[in-house]
Amino acid sequence: MATLGDIGVSAAINLLSALIFLLAFAILRLQPFNDRVYFPKWYLKGLRSSPTRSGAFVRRFVNLDFRSYLRFLNWMPEAIRMPEPELIEHAGLDSAVYLRIYLIGLKIFVPMAMLAWAILVPVNWTNNTLELAKLSNVTSSDIDKLSISNIPLGSDRFWTHIVMAYVFTFWTCYVLMKEYEKVATMRLQFLASERRRPDQFTVLVRNVPPDPDESVSELVEHFFLVNHPDHYLTHQVVYNSNKLAKLVKKKKSMQNWLDFYQIKYSRDQSQRPLIKTGFLRLWGQKVDAIDHYNSEIEKLSKEIAEEREKVETDPKSVMPAAFVSFKSRWGAAVCAQTQQSRNPTLWLTEWAPEPRDVYWQNLPIPYVSLAIRRLIMNVAFFFLTFFFMIPIAFVQALASIEGIEKRAPFLEPIIEIKFIKSLIQGFLPGIALKLFLIFLPTILMIMSKFEGFTSLSSLERRSAMRYYLFNIVNVFLGSIIAGSAFEQLNSFIKQSASEIPKTIGVAIPMKATFFITYIMVDGWAGIAGEVLMLKPLIIFHLKNFFLVKTEKDREEAMDPGSLGFNTGEPRIQFYFLLGLVYATVTPALLPFIIIFFAFAYVVFRHQIINVYNQEYESGAAFWPDVHGRIIIALIISQVLLIGLLSTKHAAQSTPFLIALPVLTIWFHNFCKGRYEPAFIRYPLQEAMMKDTLERAREPNLNLKAYLQNAYMHPVFKGDDDEEDEDISEKLVTESVLVPTKRQSRRNTPVPSRISSASSPSLTEVIKEHPEP
Amino acid sequence: MATLGDIGVSAAINLLSALIFLLAFAILRLQPFNDRVYFPKWYLKGLRSSPTRSGAFVRRFVNLDFRSYLRFLNWMPEAIRMPEPELIEHAGLDSAVYLRIYLIGLKIFVPMAMLAWAILVPVNWTNNTLELAKLSNVTSSDIDKLSISNIPLGSDRFWTHIVMAYVFTFWTCYVLMKEYEKVATMRLQFLASERRRPDQFTVLVRNVPPDPDESVSELVEHFFLVNHPDHYLTHQVVYNSNKLAKLVKKKKSMQNWLDFYQIKYSRDQSQRPLIKTGFLRLWGQKVDAIDHYNSEIEKLSKEIAEEREKVETDPKSVMPAAFVSFKSRWGAAVCAQTQQSRNPTLWLTEWAPEPRDVYWQNLPIPYVSLAIRRLIMNVAFFFLTFFFMIPIAFVQALASIEGIEKRAPFLEPIIEIKFIKSLIQGFLPGIALKLFLIFLPTILMIMSKFEGFTSLSSLERRSAMRYYLFNIVNVFLGSIIAGSAFEQLNSFIKQSASEIPKTIGVAIPMKATFFITYIMVDGWAGIAGEVLMLKPLIIFHLKNFFLVKTEKDREEAMDPGSLGFNTGEPRIQFYFLLGLVYATVTPALLPFIIIFFAFAYVVFRHQIINVYNQEYESGAAFWPDVHGRIIIALIISQVLLIGLLSTKHAAQSTPFLIALPVLTIWFHNFCKGRYEPAFIRYPLQEAMMKDTLERAREPNLNLKAYLQNAYMHPVFKGDDDEEDEDISEKLVTESVLVPTKRQSRRNTPVPSRISSASSPSLTEVIKEHPEP
Repeated sequence: MATLGDIGVSAAINLLSALIFLLAFAILRLQPFNDRVYFPKWYLKGLRSSPTRSGAFVRRFVNLDFRSYLRFLNWMPEAIRMPEPELIEHAGLDSAVYLRIYLIGLKIFVPMAMLAWAILVPVNWTNNTLELAKLSNVTSSDIDKLSISNIPLGSDRFWTHIVMAYVFTFWTCYVLMKEYEKVATMRLQFLASERRRPDQFTVLVRNVPPDPDESVSELVEHFFLVNHPDHYLTHQVVYNSNKLAKLVKKKKSMQNWLDFYQIKYSRDQSQRPLIKTGFLRLWGQKVDAIDHYNSEIEKLSKEIAEEREKVETDPKSVMPAAFVSFKSRWGAAVCAQTQQSRNPTLWLTEWAPEPRDVYWQNLPIPYVSLAIRRLIMNVAFFFLTFFFMIPIAFVQALASIEGIEKRAPFLEPIIEIKFIKSLIQGFLPGIALKLFLIFLPTILMIMSKFEGFTSLSSLERRSAMRYYLFNIVNVFLGSIIAGSAFEQLNSFIKQSASEIPKTIGVAIPMKATFFITYIMVDGWAGIAGEVLMLKPLIIFHLKNFFLVKTEKDREEAMDPGSLGFNTGEPRIQFYFLLGLVYATVTPALLPFIIIFFAFAYVVFRHQIINVYNQEYESGAAFWPDVHGRIIIALIISQVLLIGLLSTKHAAQSTPFLIALPVLTIWFHNFCKGRYEPAFIRYPLQEAMMKDTLERAREPNLNLKAYLQNAYMHPVFKGDDDEEDEDISEKLVTESVLVPTKRQSRRNTPVPSRISSASSPSLTEVIKEHPEP
Repeated sequence: MATLGDIGVSAAINLLSALIFLLAFAILRLQPFNDRVYFPKWYLKGLRSSPTRSGAFVRRFVNLDFRSYLRFLNWMPEAIRMPEPELIEHAGLDSAVYLRIYLIGLKIFVPMAMLAWAILVPVNWTNNTLELAKLSNVTSSDIDKLSISNIPLGSDRFWTHIVMAYVFTFWTCYVLMKEYEKVATMRLQFLASERRRPDQFTVLVRNVPPDPDESVSELVEHFFLVNHPDHYLTHQVVYNSNKLAKLVKKKKSMQNWLDFYQIKYSRDQSQRPLIKTGFLRLWGQKVDAIDHYNSEIEKLSKEIAEEREKVETDPKSVMPAAFVSFKSRWGAAVCAQTQQSRNPTLWLTEWAPEPRDVYWQNLPIPYVSLAIRRLIMNVAFFFLTFFFMIPIAFVQALASIEGIEKRAPFLEPIIEIKFIKSLIQGFLPGIALKLFLIFLPTILMIMSKFEGFTSLSSLERRSAMRYYLFNIVNVFLGSIIAGSAFEQLNSFIKQSASEIPKTIGVAIPMKATFFITYIMVDGWAGIAGEVLMLKPLIIFHLKNFFLVKTEKDREEAMDPGSLGFNTGEPRIQFYFLLGLVYATVTPALLPFIIIFFAFAYVVFRHQIINVYNQEYESGAAFWPDVHGRIIIALIISQVLLIGLLSTKHAAQSTPFLIALPVLTIWFHNFCKGRYEPAFIRYPLQEAMMKDTLERAREPNLNLKAYLQNAYMHPVFKGDDDEEDEDISEKLVTESVLVPTKRQSRRNTPVPSRISSASSPSLTEVIKEHPEP
């Protein structure tokens, strides 16, 4: 059991390491040669460009203006200053709403913490149960004196906790409802915003039935001409271009190697680089690398051209799916929300995802196959969650000293060296588990892909849900009750329904100090690591050194990636779970959570403004999931409180507490009916309004031309590299072309609207070390 | 424990009583004066009319043709002979599909029983566990020798049962899927059938937001003119006419009393009947009854006229709901399936129920209120299910000898009479329970009404679901494990998740004989009672004697009512549950179930053809519920088998059995996705096809006139009695007016198409005793 002092030391260490990360960040980000790592978003938007032209050589790489170092925390107010509407315009609705999750954390937990410290902590503190227990040699920490453990069995003081559980539940629900309402409004406003987007007019049609007489394209056209005669405009069939995509990818990798050797050669012209052609470049005859890759690329280009022609002409490569566009948003809204054919598994229509959001590989999966895949993946996930320890234990057994000696006796002399032996014993078992946990999001993503979702956003949402469940079972329950998930499952099956919450509930107060440490290590230090971006920094400089030839290459090298919803969101949710569970039990934990949320909010706001470039825009479609998971956390906290109190001889309180989960579930259903449709459907009123407006403003708009090639597999555009970012560029340009309130200054990040006059913001920092 | 002999005796008794019922039915139905009780459907269709004109007086009441008595089971083949399409035309799709539930029972259980008797029974029989046990004084019956109880602990023979569980599950699922497909097709065909119906064009709009400047009617018109400009046709607002309906009902009851006294006076003209005007007609001054009621009716008529005018002119009596009609089925299908306004709780649209199916009182309930009502009713139902014994025990305590003596000492002398004492002791406690069970469907119906459903069909569906759950908890579990539902709940909470199926599973084989008796008493004899229709018979003759003046009165008096889905379907489902649970455990039970299904099928087919007059037509919208409940029964049976086997030292089989519920749930989800949309949505393809056809056939159709008054509260039509059955008549006439294949002969029920030439059917029976 940790004392307050222990926690203080731990907090100090973690704060220090966070501070070191922040200092490192503050220094690194001011160096011009790191500029592309820490501000890629502005480069991608074309509002900032490399310092290339003139000036002292050194100053191009190192910032020598020491004044700028003094204000090393400047980025924090900067990050907060940009107002939300501008943030939405700058980074998209998804990112802006993602930040609101942290804000919700603050909104829920700040008043909760104040109330808890004002009421619960004094109630808990003014007992001496633990002091008495200490006399009989039961150890306890100071933290425990602030917690529910300090209240004697059967005390009437537990009513305070019950009342507070009600207050906390109502407050959480109130915040959740307000937030749901706000986000739903933001989404509808966003969808109704002025900008025209192809997905507003387009519906994805899947499971087009095969027809012996007509091609898919003809079939689609006829079907919609008949059934939506007044609204159908055009359609694009989907080609099965997975092989083509593979070839293009291979060519790109070859191109990278070619660049690498060309740069190598240009730096050291004394000898042409040679490579071996065999397996892993380790065996085989030596050839000239540059020539080799040149010829390989040429070969691949030819293959690609052939494959492309084949895909475009062979009717077999047309998949039974199509993007159907309509003359009006109204027509598309109608088609997306209705059933088309008598057989509900054919002609399935749904809103087309944004072109960038489409996951092309999954478009042709038929209905029955989808149902089977879902079953398989659910079963697989169940086993993954509860039995993942089995293969890992197996690997750990293999990786033990004895295991290695047995299987590879020739390694024995090396292993017996003391240093290596302790290394193996200390690290290998942990590494197997760590590796698994690192790859878990990838595994979950692969599972979602197999399940057959058609958009990246839905893939990420499903993965996030599974990651969250995995965390609850293996991290939360796993930390509270020792033993693997499978052992827990086994004991839960054998325990009665009323025993399970007791078993867990009773262990909860004891684990408070553990979770406080967890919050500091994983939360505080983790977020500080996030802002430092060590991995992208290293990768960028490596790429920059070995591969970059042109400005375009450099742009590709700095690829900042996007906010990983599938890993990030479940991690935040874990803090909601901890906060809600401990709010009534050990309120001392709440301040740590609040610091996490506040810090993470600032850091991610900075990252979203300056770094991440969202891959797609789903219009905050993930909000119902976020809402639902906080509700799950709330219900878990209520059930565990029931379990805990029933061990405290306060069983008469159970009926009062049972009403809480019932009300919470009801609240969830209410919110689902009230707000969720805004995330699934598209109201006709909105569509009609927008259509009418557009018709009045642009009576001669050629919509068909606009939509003609909106939904085209990226590889078909990859021919000349210019076209590659066709759509995203078009989208970006468009967003810039609408009458904007910002002065479009190239080369400096545009100051936030309200801060433009007064703040010593990013602009100033850059002015202070003007590009030479 | 019952022996085979006991069961034989019980079967004989029940068969005999069933036979007596059938004989009584055979005799009563041939009497012309009962004709309107046993063939009301034909009267309502206008294909049969009273024998009034000529002939011997006696023969008008009694059938003297003895030959007709000989063939007293003739109605059975008759009932089966009518082919399904004709049945649908005759009695509606709801009834025809309802019959298919019994057919499914046969389809599932006949092959199952054959397989079980061929494989399981020999496997069970060829052990001597029970014989050995008998030596150590454990009693067991012969039935048990055929059951799983006869297999020794840990025997490998249990694998047979596991394999059979798989076979049974797959067979049940296969039948269910085929049937779902068939019913879905029937429904779509029915909806697409030639007949034009107002609900095809109409959508019910609820939660019209209040507007200070416009009336509801204007608001609705403007909204739909803007958002469905090409499709909107007309609309009807809904008036709050609950008070008016109450007045009309009161007038009708007065009219009945007037008729009663007029008939009384006409029979005995010596003195005019007098009544007292006070409370319950027991106190107050005496007045002339006929004059009194005449003046009362006149007063009410005036009040009704006033109220009607008030409702029609006062804007406050317009409810925020409307029936909106469209120019085409396509337009209606689109509006019903899409979200209209930004706020998903306003402008809620759904398919309008058939005019007869509308439950008018619930139309104006706002969204939030609906959500709260649902919560309240779910909680109330939970308490009703688990705690209903508490008030009954209280009543029973009151109704005991001591209770009565204590509360009403003046009754003591009467109670102490021995006969009355034993009567009270023997019957009163049972009567309290019996009364509750009789009123249970009514209570559940009131709960559903409070919950706010807008159509009679959905009210009945919800009640059926609750009745089924009540039956599972209180009849099924209650019979297997002694003790009230609350005690069970309490013990289940305290037992572990793996203990519960064991506790129940182990008791299942022991209860087989009990359930066999249950099937015979409740099933066999109950169904025979159903065909006799004792209650309607008595009521008809009473009414006929006291109230009937005109032909129209007589028609009202014979009102056969409709098939009560809310009570009938859960009862059938209970037999599915029994059959599936016992199929692997005690296959000896299956033949009894098969007899029930076969017998009930014939009886209900007869009743549907000749008696019941369905109140509304929902197009078999209840099928997903039926399907879902059979799935529930299947899963219960699987879980209980797991529990049973784990007590038989066959725990290694559990993993094989756990796959079954998982697969079954998956199958259910699959069916839900594949077939359920056919019951909720209306495919646009169908709508378009139908619209196009209609436009080609009747280019000058005045749809507006057709739809103008289709959705009008029944009381507004009740003014002149002719109009009262306006719509239903229109519907009937229409169905007769379409080119029919039957010869519309008045006065005789029309022979079934295929039986018209050869069979000695209904026609012949009537020819044999021609109306004099």
